[in-house]
Amino acid sequence: MRTVLLTGFEPFDQDTINPSWEAVRPLDGTLAGDVRIVARQLPCAFAQAPEHLQQLLDEFEPELVIAVGLGPGRADICIERVAININDARIPDNLGYQPIDTPVVAHGPAAYFSTLPIKAMVRAIRVAGIPASVSHTAGTFVCNQVFYYLQHALAGTAVRSGFIHVPALPQQAVQCGGPSMAQTTLVEGLRIAVISALNTTDDVLESGGQIS
Amino acid sequence: MRTVLLTGFEPFDQDTINPSWEAVRPLDGTLAGDVRIVARQLPCAFAQAPEHLQQLLDEFEPELVIAVGLGPGRADICIERVAININDARIPDNLGYQPIDTPVVAHGPAAYFSTLPIKAMVRAIRVAGIPASVSHTAGTFVCNQVFYYLQHALAGTAVRSGFIHVPALPQQAVQCGGPSMAQTTLVEGLRIAVISALNTTDDVLESGGQIS
Amino acid sequence: MRTVLLTGFEPFDQDTINPSWEAVRPLDGTLAGDVRIVARQLPCAFAQAPEHLQQLLDEFEPELVIAVGLGPGRADICIERVAININDARIPDNLGYQPIDTPVVAHGPAAYFSTLPIKAMVRAIRVAGIPASVSHTAGTFVCNQVFYYLQHALAGTAVRSGFIHVPALPQQAVQCGGPSMAQTTLVEGLRIAVISALNTTDDVLESGGQIS
Amino acid sequence: MRTVLLTGFEPFDQDTINPSWEAVRPLDGTLAGDVRIVARQLPCAFAQAPEHLQQLLDEFEPELVIAVGLGPGRADICIERVAININDARIPDNLGYQPIDTPVVAHGPAAYFSTLPIKAMVRAIRVAGIPASVSHTAGTFVCNQVFYYLQHALAGTAVRSGFIHVPALPQQAVQCGGPSMAQTTLVEGLRIAVISALNTTDDVLESGGQIS
Repeated sequence: MRTVLLTGFEPFDQDTINPSWEAVRPLDGTLAGDVRIVARQLPCAFAQAPEHLQQLLDEFEPELVIAVGLGPGRADICIERVAININDARIPDNLGYQPIDTPVVAHGPAAYFSTLPIKAMVRAIRVAGIPASVSHTAGTFVCNQVFYYLQHALAGTAVRSGFIHVPALPQQAVQCGGPSMAQTTLVEGLRIAVISALNTTDDVLESGGQIS
Repeated sequence: MRTVLLTGFEPFDQDTINPSWEAVRPLDGTLAGDVRIVARQLPCAFAQAPEHLQQLLDEFEPELVIAVGLGPGRADICIERVAININDARIPDNLGYQPIDTPVVAHGPAAYFSTLPIKAMVRAIRVAGIPASVSHTAGTFVCNQVFYYLQHALAGTAVRSGFIHVPALPQQAVQCGGPSMAQTTLVEGLRIAVISALNTTDDVLESGGQIS
Repeated sequence: MRTVLLTGFEPFDQDTINPSWEAVRPLDGTLAGDVRIVARQLPCAFAQAPEHLQQLLDEFEPELVIAVGLGPGRADICIERVAININDARIPDNLGYQPIDTPVVAHGPAAYFSTLPIKAMVRAIRVAGIPASVSHTAGTFVCNQVFYYLQHALAGTAVRSGFIHVPALPQQAVQCGGPSMAQTTLVEGLRIAVISALNTTDDVLESGGQIS
Repeated sequence: MRTVLLTGFEPFDQDTINPSWEAVRPLDGTLAGDVRIVARQLPCAFAQAPEHLQQLLDEFEPELVIAVGLGPGRADICIERVAININDARIPDNLGYQPIDTPVVAHGPAAYFSTLPIKAMVRAIRVAGIPASVSHTAGTFVCNQVFYYLQHALAGTAVRSGFIHVPALPQQAVQCGGPSMAQTTLVEGLRIAVISALNTTDDVLESGGQIS
């Protein structure tokens, strides 16, 4: 059966909940047309996340993969454009590991672009009244590591893949301040992202760039 | 019958929707215990809003009044602490009027404090997982005008009153960027605010201040 | 001799330097036309600052007083419009005191407006290429306390007075992040503010307001 | 003679001044030890900037190249980590050209990392009391184009190179709002960056990463 794989992360640092998992979990087992959606959780740990992701790729043989992570301080759903080959952790991951300036994949290329139709996805989410934009950095923590590993693992295949950062949930913003997005909005945004990615062969040509 | 009056504003400037009205409209006709909630819309115009508000006060004789307005760029539900006796409009209102440095009420005091239990309301909303905080400026546009007029009109009475600024709706943030809050979250936050205000006689003593 | 009194604060919290003092200290003993400028430091403590300020007012009998404080996170020189009669400290002051919801002056009015020509001052500073704006909240910490006390002490006199918040210094932003302003820019901005206030009888009529 | 090449941009869009040029222009003709610093201006145009830069590389045969650009809204000196192979212009450049999703260099790699000791440079600037940090996106406009082209042109050589984004000048922030940095601070920051880059063989190992 045609399959879309979505991943979210387990809670990180002080949090007891991770909006990336709350955003994709309700889509697990649902259908996008005749394509089933599978949602799975990744550990927030450099030493485990890539291997865990590889197992999911092997098990489900998806035609489309979207990994999702929390982007603290972000106000909208951010479709990431590029993954870079560097780990540089400001704080330790969930296993206490804090790599600084190590490559995600030794001798890998400096970066991979998303192979998702990022402009079409942004447009589709926005048309539904949900804030979204293209982002040009996925950071240098486990999110970027997973994104880079994903693109590396699928490079040269027909499987399209990419990464989305989501805002904090309202209950997290109660503690930390900053913008937030309701879970229902996140889930709907992710659902639209999946459908848009499945339905778009050639990405639309409209600006999603940044001056700096 | 015991009555709570909520007001929201009509759409303003380029907008076709105003989150302050979307936040209170669904509460119109509902009950908070044995107290009915009445929600009405105010014009976003200096020349009309106070008179319109006065008519609502006369008509419904509420025991509690909360006026609500849009706070563009705000990320949480802001319980306003103080209204000041100044109109200073950066842009024209919906009737094209743009007062600069005029008083809301000639010879009125410089300011009125909210008579709502603002700390208890912030706490109650946050306990429900919805971001909220005390705000120390309601600006100098029609929101502040309505807030000041409201406090002036009810000064010396037993009727408690105040003002709440709400974030933009997600569909507005699609256009303007910045943080947003889902309508369902706004309505729930306002509902909790009303109940908290009704149930609190003496405000709680916890910090909601700002360094600057 | 005609005198302008400027005050800045001693370092606060973790800081070893306070930009408000660095901004006014170099102006001490200088002349603005035939008016001498006196700059003095205030303690960052609720229990001491008003009394200390009163002594300075008694000693120098200034015709113009501008108190200056640090506004963490602010990007420009903020000419404050209004002081409110409330102390609400998020963190303890330099003596460990943290008042919550106490009045600055018992039975004082809710607020005092600045008696400085705030619009003319903003314009003059901006004409010199230095970012400045009107601010509508001085917070609820010692800055606001000093501002309120100052306006209260001079109410009904011909002495004009007000408050200015300045950004952090670059060396502070190295530690805390956020915007900053060079000391030379701060000093020049304050010097222009003094001259503008001395030279302006009637404030200019241009918008400095905020929507919310 | 050993040479460091610095570039800044001509004014862009509505501006009459570009802080990137004001930051490097005063360093032109100065010495860093026995190394001369040459500062030159680049056009803010996709069709001209790379060729212009190549001419400078040919003419001066520098051992170190730092291109500098304006980062509107940035509060500190941002040492860029990575250039990506994409042009995506939100607004037209100074020749009216607005490429969307075109490569900087056809068939070039997805990205190049800076070959500067970015962590040592950040540390050195910060030690001098000037805010600085590592940045993980140089945008998708002419700044990133120049950065990518520079790294591409020098790939495989011993010449080290990279890009720095600087905040707006105070006189620009007067118009546009947001944070700014004084020209003297910018020049000092750039001077330190050059010296640090010249003196550092192996970059220091300390975190400059971002969660997302």
